Amino acid sequence: MNHNDRFLMLLALLLLVPAMGAFAEDLTNDEIQAAFDAIWLVIAAALVFFMQAGFAMVETGLTRAKNAGNIIMKNLMDFSVGAVMYWAIGWALMYGESVGAFIGGSDFFVQGDTALMRDWFFQVVFAATAATIVSGAMAERTKFTSYLIYSVFISGVIYPISGHWIWQGDGWLTAMGFHDFAGSTVVHSVGGWAALAGAIVLGPRIGKYVKKDGKITSKAIMGHNLPLAALGVFILWFGWYGFNAGSTLSGTDTSMTSVAVTTTLAASGGAILAMLTVWILNGKPDVSMSLNGALAGLVGITASTAVVGNSEAIIIGGIAGIIVVLSVEFLDKVLHIDDPVGAVSVHGVCGVWGTLAVGIFGDLDAIGSGLTRGGQIGVQALGAAAVFAWAFFLALILFFIVKKTVGLRVTEKEELAGLDIDEHGTEAYAGFQIFQNM
Amino acid sequence: MNHNDRFLMLLALLLLVPAMGAFAEDLTNDEIQAAFDAIWLVIAAALVFFMQAGFAMVETGLTRAKNAGNIIMKNLMDFSVGAVMYWAIGWALMYGESVGAFIGGSDFFVQGDTALMRDWFFQVVFAATAATIVSGAMAERTKFTSYLIYSVFISGVIYPISGHWIWQGDGWLTAMGFHDFAGSTVVHSVGGWAALAGAIVLGPRIGKYVKKDGKITSKAIMGHNLPLAALGVFILWFGWYGFNAGSTLSGTDTSMTSVAVTTTLAASGGAILAMLTVWILNGKPDVSMSLNGALAGLVGITASTAVVGNSEAIIIGGIAGIIVVLSVEFLDKVLHIDDPVGAVSVHGVCGVWGTLAVGIFGDLDAIGSGLTRGGQIGVQALGAAAVFAWAFFLALILFFIVKKTVGLRVTEKEELAGLDIDEHGTEAYAGFQIFQNM
Amino acid sequence: MNHNDRFLMLLALLLLVPAMGAFAEDLTNDEIQAAFDAIWLVIAAALVFFMQAGFAMVETGLTRAKNAGNIIMKNLMDFSVGAVMYWAIGWALMYGESVGAFIGGSDFFVQGDTALMRDWFFQVVFAATAATIVSGAMAERTKFTSYLIYSVFISGVIYPISGHWIWQGDGWLTAMGFHDFAGSTVVHSVGGWAALAGAIVLGPRIGKYVKKDGKITSKAIMGHNLPLAALGVFILWFGWYGFNAGSTLSGTDTSMTSVAVTTTLAASGGAILAMLTVWILNGKPDVSMSLNGALAGLVGITASTAVVGNSEAIIIGGIAGIIVVLSVEFLDKVLHIDDPVGAVSVHGVCGVWGTLAVGIFGDLDAIGSGLTRGGQIGVQALGAAAVFAWAFFLALILFFIVKKTVGLRVTEKEELAGLDIDEHGTEAYAGFQIFQNM
Repeated sequence: MNHNDRFLMLLALLLLVPAMGAFAEDLTNDEIQAAFDAIWLVIAAALVFFMQAGFAMVETGLTRAKNAGNIIMKNLMDFSVGAVMYWAIGWALMYGESVGAFIGGSDFFVQGDTALMRDWFFQVVFAATAATIVSGAMAERTKFTSYLIYSVFISGVIYPISGHWIWQGDGWLTAMGFHDFAGSTVVHSVGGWAALAGAIVLGPRIGKYVKKDGKITSKAIMGHNLPLAALGVFILWFGWYGFNAGSTLSGTDTSMTSVAVTTTLAASGGAILAMLTVWILNGKPDVSMSLNGALAGLVGITASTAVVGNSEAIIIGGIAGIIVVLSVEFLDKVLHIDDPVGAVSVHGVCGVWGTLAVGIFGDLDAIGSGLTRGGQIGVQALGAAAVFAWAFFLALILFFIVKKTVGLRVTEKEELAGLDIDEHGTEAYAGFQIFQNM
Repeated sequence: MNHNDRFLMLLALLLLVPAMGAFAEDLTNDEIQAAFDAIWLVIAAALVFFMQAGFAMVETGLTRAKNAGNIIMKNLMDFSVGAVMYWAIGWALMYGESVGAFIGGSDFFVQGDTALMRDWFFQVVFAATAATIVSGAMAERTKFTSYLIYSVFISGVIYPISGHWIWQGDGWLTAMGFHDFAGSTVVHSVGGWAALAGAIVLGPRIGKYVKKDGKITSKAIMGHNLPLAALGVFILWFGWYGFNAGSTLSGTDTSMTSVAVTTTLAASGGAILAMLTVWILNGKPDVSMSLNGALAGLVGITASTAVVGNSEAIIIGGIAGIIVVLSVEFLDKVLHIDDPVGAVSVHGVCGVWGTLAVGIFGDLDAIGSGLTRGGQIGVQALGAAAVFAWAFFLALILFFIVKKTVGLRVTEKEELAGLDIDEHGTEAYAGFQIFQNM
Repeated sequence: MNHNDRFLMLLALLLLVPAMGAFAEDLTNDEIQAAFDAIWLVIAAALVFFMQAGFAMVETGLTRAKNAGNIIMKNLMDFSVGAVMYWAIGWALMYGESVGAFIGGSDFFVQGDTALMRDWFFQVVFAATAATIVSGAMAERTKFTSYLIYSVFISGVIYPISGHWIWQGDGWLTAMGFHDFAGSTVVHSVGGWAALAGAIVLGPRIGKYVKKDGKITSKAIMGHNLPLAALGVFILWFGWYGFNAGSTLSGTDTSMTSVAVTTTLAASGGAILAMLTVWILNGKPDVSMSLNGALAGLVGITASTAVVGNSEAIIIGGIAGIIVVLSVEFLDKVLHIDDPVGAVSVHGVCGVWGTLAVGIFGDLDAIGSGLTRGGQIGVQALGAAAVFAWAFFLALILFFIVKKTVGLRVTEKEELAGLDIDEHGTEAYAGFQIFQNM
């Protein structure tokens, strides 16, 4: 063995040391990537799960004490029933192999490796968000059994199918260049339009609209616990960091940071502008409207959060804050549709605004659809319209069938007494003196 | 220097570049692993810490307004006192060097490197969970001073020693092949059985059981704030993602994702089945029982969360949901043991169910004990029984000694007036009109 | 090609395989570091954001029902307005290029790469914390419009400039060796001293101090919802893990684990010692004082959390728990300054204590200022004094100008009726019967 040979041997040995390490115990690149993705998405999904508490508190706080127990049950059950349905059917219809770019058709009763379980966990909490939005618009008068039936369908069928069009990769809206980063349309509009259908089929709460001399007057029915509603909004805002930033879907995509920033600024803009709008219109900075303004800003930024800058985020959120006030007033005062918490306006209307905002303000290169600005706006409008048609009319049919079979609404006596007593045999605030006419 | 020599020199230099990088500034494999573990466990532990808020809200919401301040104080203090005790003694008895496979005996007043601090932080929040469970069963009648004494012992002595048997690695139950991934037995049963001892030694609240014509009737004492209780359950569920998924103990073990999924489905199954069970039994879907059903599902899946599939998780959680309803009724109606929030049934009984479920449904290869299915079930039953004997009888003795010395229970006058006034000189809801007989 | 040549070729090819991988798809070291930092700081910042909910609940719970809606609005708006201000101006003044070691002067209307967005997101939630602290001391009597004006200035000007001195790197206090890891001075004292200025300029709530025979008696005005206040404290404690552990600013700095431990133990020590102190002084373990004790311990450990051991953490937190009780009594009974929630004592006074504790207990090597112990204590005292002078007097001037122009305080009639009715046209607990004289 000559000098060179010995040198080569030494070199080869030196090379083997790290190589052996890599094969023996060092983390591989794939393991590192998988760890980042698992940690990031499990935590993000847990935050999105926590939004269920936020929705429950907002809805409870903005309605009357006599229905608080019922509202809690609806929120607990739409997640529980929804999770089981999304495991059995929903995931398959949404992310299963595409049948005609319209519906998925594989992976029922999901079971698989840790990467699949990671993805399912992140998706089930989005499905549950869509489901729970409806609860607010139907509060204080819906039969509990009927609500359970509805929950099965939105988590199992309605939400997954339109979701397939946009997020599965082979859907027809994806193919057209439609962009909805974290679900202004996929999640919020779907929930909002199903909520609209529910509110229409149910009709308003007793005493909400008073007809006098041929003129209908809307009566404000105040929520019973504003601090709880505010807590709910803070929880939702907190959870939204999982909702939006988690939608990078990758633990090594550092754009999660800029997403967190646009989310923050849009929510702030929404709260401020909603407060100013209602202040100008009604003379006072209304609390529940300002809270809804923050949510409107969050819904508004959800679609475009990854493709707009910070100034645009404030503008998008701010406009959402104006829209939500006008929309709530329009539904209530003009259309006389009774939506106790403003779910249709916050999630449906501002969801559409957020979807359009992608086309208006989004960085076309970042969207990457290859469309012109006009084209992008057009596709965003088409997608919003298609999802409206799907969610609203399907929910309308569903609620109509429920109404004609098991019945959708409690009796007048039950509604006046509060749903807690008759539906659940309880009261939410035992011991507190509460005015009987509330 | 010939051609080969020059080539070799170049090669060696090329090799040096990344090598220098690795030594100079690149993260080593150990540093990457340490960063994953630190981030994952600090966040998971923070989530488990937040469960303290959940327990406080559940217990407050399910009891009467006149004791709310006292309940908050107990929850704040069992964590604060417990953390100091677990730092001084508890960790040493649990994770110190094993003395006879029964008790640890080193590392008192814990101080050490960041890896040790990481592990202590993750463990202290589990110790605090066991401690706080007891509070619920003893609510509305326990002397505050006595509760503080008790807290010292469960966090410092009772919990750590049985924990040593199972989680330290050299414990006698570990050696037998006992499997309890995240603590159905280690945490929840220990808390549940100590709670049972407390409820027995204390006796029922005034007015809870009425004797008439030789027959004892149980009177329902309703909680004063169901929305708060519901919020508590959502917080607990949220925190449970830290509790269960964090129990992988490694930031690169991607099974945290499948653990999150089985946790979600079991909680859902528990909520649904508890609702249906109470609906069938009593005619209405009870709110607080459904909330407890979700918790029962969570306790039930905790031991087996990493070794069962998704269908099994729904079954385990669902059965826990049935069990918790039957157990609450049995304790109340048959045994006349007054557990205001159902802590014994949720944590003690469902903890045992979850422990047995490992043997019944668990993947034997994943458990890795080398036992047959029958053998595994037997060991799980033995472990559950041993921990019952340890926690229940030790707590019984402790509470009995406290009762005979400082006294365990407040006076009848104090209990009727509410503990807030006399124990803490306050009222929890100043300004609200509350019925005096509550 | 001879034997050596062939061997060399083979070796070179072997070397190319991993090298190609690294360039083609493997994560680089920088990407791994960036992913750790992004995940860690986004989650930590989200936790700190959630502290807004904690502050809102503590302040709401410790004041009267008739002002709950107003308090929520203030908390929602000081974050929303503060975030926009910190985006437009605050960040630039704090972290922009230093002008004379006193103020930053670049990067207005922040926009940049994901690393910059990560840092801004983590910093904006700290700015919002400082702003919201003030709200508590000014509760139940401040005009909403005036509060909005104030919010603009603290987030946009007051907080960023003193923050520049300490955290930007080129500030004059940094140059002297001042150490404030997570903001006992930078965040909490600034908020606390501005709160003191606000409380002084506003004057006490009607009925708080009664003058009789030349002697002023302080009347306790009880909070209306202790469970909500307790929830707020648990949320703050939870969020503090983001606040302190996140202040490592690096996802690979595993000292986040020991920071989490000292944070836990200091909070526990604070809660226990505050309870014992008030128990000794007033005869009963007061609930709201114990809750404030936990917060005092947290504020106290914030500056030194990374440079002290666990025993020291308990001592620092415990002393903070004693101090907060004495300070609250002193402000109320001796100085007759009305701070409804104890914000000045918790954040201002304990912030100073925490800042001094760095010098007294901190590991001088870990601090790395090169000062002697005496020198370090001196610099900490100097920094605390400088920030007091800056924040207190600037806020005093600001509140004085507001008072003389738009007015700082609501009318007597509005204050007696509650701010919710007149300022926001709502009531927070519609339907509940609430005593009119509250």
